[in-house]
Amino acid sequence: MNITHTLSQHTLFLSPQDIARIVGWQGMAATLRGLADTIEDDFVRWPCFDKSARLASHSQDGVIELMPIADTRHYSFKYVNGHPKNTAQGLSTVMAFGVLADVATGIPRLISEMTLTTALRTAATSAVAALALARPDSRVMALIGNGAQSEFQALAFHLLVGIEEIRLYDIDPQATAKLLHNLRHNPDAAQLRLTTCTSVAEAVRGADIVTTITADKTNATIISANMLEPGMHINGVGGDCPGKTEIHPDVLRGSKVFVEYEPQTRIEGDLQHLPADFPVTELWQVLAGNQVGRDHAAQVTMFDSVGFAMEDFSALRYMWAQARALGLVTPIDLIPQLADPKDLYGLIKPAQDLAFVQRNKAHRTTLAAEETLA
Amino acid sequence: MNITHTLSQHTLFLSPQDIARIVGWQGMAATLRGLADTIEDDFVRWPCFDKSARLASHSQDGVIELMPIADTRHYSFKYVNGHPKNTAQGLSTVMAFGVLADVATGIPRLISEMTLTTALRTAATSAVAALALARPDSRVMALIGNGAQSEFQALAFHLLVGIEEIRLYDIDPQATAKLLHNLRHNPDAAQLRLTTCTSVAEAVRGADIVTTITADKTNATIISANMLEPGMHINGVGGDCPGKTEIHPDVLRGSKVFVEYEPQTRIEGDLQHLPADFPVTELWQVLAGNQVGRDHAAQVTMFDSVGFAMEDFSALRYMWAQARALGLVTPIDLIPQLADPKDLYGLIKPAQDLAFVQRNKAHRTTLAAEETLA
Repeated sequence: MNITHTLSQHTLFLSPQDIARIVGWQGMAATLRGLADTIEDDFVRWPCFDKSARLASHSQDGVIELMPIADTRHYSFKYVNGHPKNTAQGLSTVMAFGVLADVATGIPRLISEMTLTTALRTAATSAVAALALARPDSRVMALIGNGAQSEFQALAFHLLVGIEEIRLYDIDPQATAKLLHNLRHNPDAAQLRLTTCTSVAEAVRGADIVTTITADKTNATIISANMLEPGMHINGVGGDCPGKTEIHPDVLRGSKVFVEYEPQTRIEGDLQHLPADFPVTELWQVLAGNQVGRDHAAQVTMFDSVGFAMEDFSALRYMWAQARALGLVTPIDLIPQLADPKDLYGLIKPAQDLAFVQRNKAHRTTLAAEETLA
Repeated sequence: MNITHTLSQHTLFLSPQDIARIVGWQGMAATLRGLADTIEDDFVRWPCFDKSARLASHSQDGVIELMPIADTRHYSFKYVNGHPKNTAQGLSTVMAFGVLADVATGIPRLISEMTLTTALRTAATSAVAALALARPDSRVMALIGNGAQSEFQALAFHLLVGIEEIRLYDIDPQATAKLLHNLRHNPDAAQLRLTTCTSVAEAVRGADIVTTITADKTNATIISANMLEPGMHINGVGGDCPGKTEIHPDVLRGSKVFVEYEPQTRIEGDLQHLPADFPVTELWQVLAGNQVGRDHAAQVTMFDSVGFAMEDFSALRYMWAQARALGLVTPIDLIPQLADPKDLYGLIKPAQDLAFVQRNKAHRTTLAAEETLA
């Protein structure tokens, strides 16, 4: 495409509205399927990635993390926070953005919002894992936690995994009401049966798949071992930092446990409560055909998901390709365009034109008075 | 200021042109002085920072790094690459951008270019170190390496440190010609004498301060011990990753060596060639008055500078304050503005309006044909 060539040295910018436009234009099913395919393809070539656990900066009320990863062509990182108290002041618990760059030159090619994209890629990853690990005849899912990411999980399991009924529970009935409202007005969910439950136990009873996606920064026990039923698949999505879990350790002891990147999940996942030698299987090994997933129909499987940088890498590459195909090509001046790369100073020269400085003298006088740090 | 209040949930964006405007409006001297003051203030409160060595991703032709740091109020990180072969294809060796966020909520407040800002903050940091370590009567500087950062170093030492003569050398005579041209047309450098030299030794002879700022990714030896003269200050700015140095180990052995953040400099600095117990002093200890800098006028001092995340933190805070004072307040939609923080899905709803989908049906058909990854 010509347009991408003419912009080849520029950085592309995608806002939350741009991502919403991509979803609107393609439809939710195509977007989730495209993301799931890209994520699965990248999981299968897992050894090609230069991986590391994320770099976290913890503070009193939350955490800010950087999640870098690279293959030989592309480098990406995501900035993401986790501040559970934010919702009390009308802010999101999780906000994110990410960058995709060329390994060969270091040029950042894309800077994109990732608050919405993270919800989409997390749901797509959950679906990829469930398709590999849950019983193929799974039709009923319990969805515990009906917050910001819940609609995405519900739609991914309905549209990609074949779930026909979802049983909802949240300690905040308004969250459940919001989820119900959003899905009942969504043509993609027209065939999906939604049931509101009054307890976790009621929601989980008889479910083929149990998705937990709660956000309290405490060692909560949302799911306990007495709720397990033979053949269940647990999709444990919430709880993703030290001291933040959702699932009782006995649930893991009673399950075959699958993880994204073992070194990170041992620190951050529900796995943090178990000994360092508790056996787990990395999901990519199952997707690549190196190891089996579920051993038999009655086994309980659990995906202890914490979110891994590779999923963001996949999502950024996918959204970049879709944005260019759809003509969403807003450039952003993040990197200077220099006629001579050794003449960085040349950027400043025009501004030193004397007439220009004279024109701004009044402004500069005002500035001198205000020259204080915030 | 009202304007900052109304934008309080938004992220501010600063392009290279915006940074050039700030420098143009304030003047180079005020900008470098403001940066130097902010950097020095932050060095003095060094124990208040949550510090870590940068996270580097090395590839065949270069490196991409993330440099995070935080105090109790702000978190920042810089993305920066180093690809020495880039200039051959007309690209910058070093490109950078950075983010300043609130620790309490995780909201990114500022995303800014840092290619230009890094050159400014590095020069300001060199000046802060030289004012603390060089002889107060220093008037002559050798400037070895006349690439993208050289004008900034020259101006910082002239405007802040009192250097009256600079002796220039670069293996590429065109780089020196570019530097001469840029400074000879700059009123800030009207009183600065510039001399072109034909060798490093010629440039260094008789200099009070020697600044090295070369970029080859090899263990080069730009400065050797036989060039040292009593009382010199070496400002070693280039060479900032493993295997990339400029200064012969004997130069360090013959000097009192100062560093920014010892764990990082031991890995990346010219210090990498010396034993782990070779004594160094962290610059902040001198600035805070805890340790002495230069012991006597005849001592050789060396600042083995590699660039530390705190300097970017300082620069981002400074540019943020200046931009707001000057009315440069372009918001960027990096983070969604949600009426209900638990209703992230609400961002997508409007795009699902059926009429909207109908209007885009033709577009979506085209898309289906193009739906391939780049």
